[in-house]
Amino acid sequence: MERDVVMREVGLRDGIQGVSDFMATEDKVRWVRAEAAAGVVEIEVTSYVPPKVLPQFADSETVTRESLKVNGLTVSALVPNLKGAQRGFELGVHKLNFVMSVSETHNQKNVRRSREASFDEFRNIIAHTKELPADKRPIICAGLATALGCSYEGKVAVSEVVRWAAALLEAGAQELIIPDTVGYASPALVTEVFRAVQAEAGDIPVAAHFHDTRGTGLANLVAALDTGVKLFDASLAGTGGCPFAPGASGNIVMEDAVYMLESMGVRTGIDIEKLIAVRDILREGLPNLRLEGAISRAGLPRGFSPATPLAA
Amino acid sequence: MERDVVMREVGLRDGIQGVSDFMATEDKVRWVRAEAAAGVVEIEVTSYVPPKVLPQFADSETVTRESLKVNGLTVSALVPNLKGAQRGFELGVHKLNFVMSVSETHNQKNVRRSREASFDEFRNIIAHTKELPADKRPIICAGLATALGCSYEGKVAVSEVVRWAAALLEAGAQELIIPDTVGYASPALVTEVFRAVQAEAGDIPVAAHFHDTRGTGLANLVAALDTGVKLFDASLAGTGGCPFAPGASGNIVMEDAVYMLESMGVRTGIDIEKLIAVRDILREGLPNLRLEGAISRAGLPRGFSPATPLAA
Repeated sequence: MERDVVMREVGLRDGIQGVSDFMATEDKVRWVRAEAAAGVVEIEVTSYVPPKVLPQFADSETVTRESLKVNGLTVSALVPNLKGAQRGFELGVHKLNFVMSVSETHNQKNVRRSREASFDEFRNIIAHTKELPADKRPIICAGLATALGCSYEGKVAVSEVVRWAAALLEAGAQELIIPDTVGYASPALVTEVFRAVQAEAGDIPVAAHFHDTRGTGLANLVAALDTGVKLFDASLAGTGGCPFAPGASGNIVMEDAVYMLESMGVRTGIDIEKLIAVRDILREGLPNLRLEGAISRAGLPRGFSPATPLAA
Repeated sequence: MERDVVMREVGLRDGIQGVSDFMATEDKVRWVRAEAAAGVVEIEVTSYVPPKVLPQFADSETVTRESLKVNGLTVSALVPNLKGAQRGFELGVHKLNFVMSVSETHNQKNVRRSREASFDEFRNIIAHTKELPADKRPIICAGLATALGCSYEGKVAVSEVVRWAAALLEAGAQELIIPDTVGYASPALVTEVFRAVQAEAGDIPVAAHFHDTRGTGLANLVAALDTGVKLFDASLAGTGGCPFAPGASGNIVMEDAVYMLESMGVRTGIDIEKLIAVRDILREGLPNLRLEGAISRAGLPRGFSPATPLAA
C-alpha cells in the first residue's frame, strides 16, 4: 500500500497512561489488531515503566508480545531509562522511544532528574543497543518534550530545542519526535521549530506529536506537513495527556486527522471507516473514558472520496 | 488600533438562529456591547426574516437599533430577500448579508426557490440600494452557501462557485462571503476555492465563514489566511449551525480562533481575556445551550504574549 504519511497510534501509551481504570490486556490487544487491520502500520503499544509508577502498563510484556505477532506492524514502546530499554531489547520490540524535556523544570517533574542526566541515560541506551547483534537492535528514537512550550517555564527557545536535537542526533538518535506536550503551539511556531529541527536532522526523520489542548491540533498538523513532516502521532478518540504536565489534554484525534489528510489528497494508507469502528473497542474496554472526536459524530461528507484507495 | 484581520461575530445570527430558547433582547444587546468593548469591530447582529420562520429574531429591530448606538461598531444583518433588505434600509444598518447557495438543492431547501430566482432577488436588492441617497446605502455583501460542499449534493464544483461569484460581483456585490455551510472543507479545498474566488474578486474583499463540524475549522482558517483572506466569521463558544443543513454544527469558536491568530502574531485587535469573559453573558442568556471551546477551558499558555497590544 502506497502512503504519503505514517499516522502512528499512541493511544495505548500516551492515551491511557493517566487513566485510572485498568484496560484489560485482551482489549488492548484487540485495539492493536483492529487498527493494524484498518491500515495503521506503527503503534506505540506500551511504556516500560514500573507498574508502581504507571499501573496501566503492568501488562506491558504481554501487550508487546501479542503486538509483535501482528503481521507488518511496527511495534514501539516508550522507555524512560536504560532499564526500560533493556526490557525492550529482551522482548524484541522494533522501536524504542526515549523522551527527555527541553524544559529543565518539566524534566525534573517528569523523570526527577536533570536534562544532562537524561541525556547521559540516552547515550547509555545507545551504547547498550550497539552491543546487540545488528539484527536485534531496535530503532532508537528521541523525543523532546515541551519543545513547543512548557506549562512550568512558558515559552521555550527554539535555539534550546535545536541544541538538544543536535545533541541527541550526535549521540545516535535514529528519529526525532517533537511533541507539543501541553498544547501551546500555534501553526506559526510549528513551522519555525520544525524547519529548524529538520535543518539539523538532515535525513533523520522528524516526527510530530501534537496535543489538542487549545483547539489548534489539526492546524498544527497541517503546518508540520507543509514543512515536510511525514510521521504523525495521534490517538484514537483523542485520549491522552501527560500526567505530569498540568493543563495537558488529549492527543490529536487519530480518526479526525486521518479524515482531514485523506480529504486533502494525502494518503495515510488507513481505511477511515474501519478506523472509526475501532472506537467501539475503546468504549467497551474503558467505559468511563470520555471519547473525543468530530468525524465519528458528524459522519463522512456525502460523496467523500479518500486519497487512499480502499480494499474491496 | 492596528489589526491584520477582522474577526466578525456571527453568533447572534448564525449561532442562535436554531436555538429554541429565546435569548432576551437585553442579553443580546449586552453580548454586542461586551464584544465591542473587547475589540470586536463587526457583528452580524440579527436576521431580517419573519418571526414565524425564525422566532429568535422577533426582536431584530430593537437589537439593530441598540447595536447601532455602539461607537465604532460595524453592524450587519442577514437578509433572505428584498423585504428583509428594506427593513435594513429603514433601520440604517451598515451592511446587509444576502445569501444564496451554490447547490441548487440546498437553495431550494433553504429559501424555497431556484438559484436563478435568488440571484434575481439579489439584483433587485442592489437596484433598490442604488435608489437610496449615497450616504444611506448599506454595503451589500453576498454569501455563497455550500461553496465548499453540500450535504444534499456532496462535492460542489469550484467552477460553479466561481461562476456564481462572478455573477454576484457583476451584479454589484461589495463583498463576497464563502461559507463552509456544512463543514465539508479541507485545508486543501479552502486553498483552491479561495484562490479561485479571489482571482475573480480582485479588490473586492472575500470573507471566510467556517463551521467546525468535522474538526477542521481552525486548520481551514489558517489555509484561508495563507491565501490572503482578512475577514473571518466566527461565533462565541462555537454556537451555530444552519437549521436547513442536516449534519451542520457550530461555527468556529471565536475565542479559539482569536487565540490562535494572536499566538501566530496576527493582530485581531481583540483582547482575548475580555472576549472569553463574554461567554458568561451567553451562559446566563441561554443556560441550556452547550458552549464549545478549548481556550476557555485550558486557559492561556504561561507566558502568552498576544500580537495585539492590550490597553492598560
